[in-house]
Amino acid sequence: MMSNQQFNIIITSHDELCEGYLKAAQLILGIDCAEVSVLSFAANMATDDFEEKMRALVEQNLSRPLLILCDLLGGTPANIAAKFVLGNDQVEVLAGINLPLVLEILVQQEAGTALADIALDDVIVNAKNSLVNISSLMRGGI
Amino acid sequence: MMSNQQFNIIITSHDELCEGYLKAAQLILGIDCAEVSVLSFAANMATDDFEEKMRALVEQNLSRPLLILCDLLGGTPANIAAKFVLGNDQVEVLAGINLPLVLEILVQQEAGTALADIALDDVIVNAKNSLVNISSLMRGGI
Repeated sequence: MMSNQQFNIIITSHDELCEGYLKAAQLILGIDCAEVSVLSFAANMATDDFEEKMRALVEQNLSRPLLILCDLLGGTPANIAAKFVLGNDQVEVLAGINLPLVLEILVQQEAGTALADIALDDVIVNAKNSLVNISSLMRGGI
Repeated sequence: MMSNQQFNIIITSHDELCEGYLKAAQLILGIDCAEVSVLSFAANMATDDFEEKMRALVEQNLSRPLLILCDLLGGTPANIAAKFVLGNDQVEVLAGINLPLVLEILVQQEAGTALADIALDDVIVNAKNSLVNISSLMRGGI
């Protein structure tokens, strides 16, 4: 079956966190996520080397709109990803991601939604709302 | 050097995401996080087996207050973790975590702060504020 997916995704992080997001999503959703790449900023990797890897991966993925999901605002993966926003109208970058956000994006990708038709600011709001203090809720806190 | 840490942490998730959070945090903070355990709900693992592993790990960790960090509200790791809140005043559970939240908690643990002295609802607010649309910010969106 041909993929009807309309955009590509790169998940990038310190160490193997990016792979962790992808594997957890694959387990939950039961899909192969073939249009998702991961890029790890590993211990002992020079920032320049990481930037070169990111540049090569972005260029491979620019045949379609590209969404880059980053672990941490201000961290090296997000800082490097941000360099590809200006001059590339088709590149979007989110940071500080959690698993609910990754799942929502992957479901939209799998459904064949265009990146431009996804309200990313709403996705961010949903992800924030899914960040909760369960023990406080269970004990009757507000 | 003796640890001055006042509480224990379990990070739990689908697949290896929990290890990803820990490894990324170790890389960024440069600390060994010896008082942090991870528990993965792996593919093909029965829910009952996972619950038994969680119960054993919680019991090992109840010598001090315990904070359980979960990948996803409504997912099996969070649902099982929630079972240990009632009847255990010393257990707190957060879900939908992102890396900024993990870092903030680990810094507090390393500093020797007591779990009861950490305003977890403020930690949640900070984590939400660190979930951002970088491309929208760079292009001048609000």
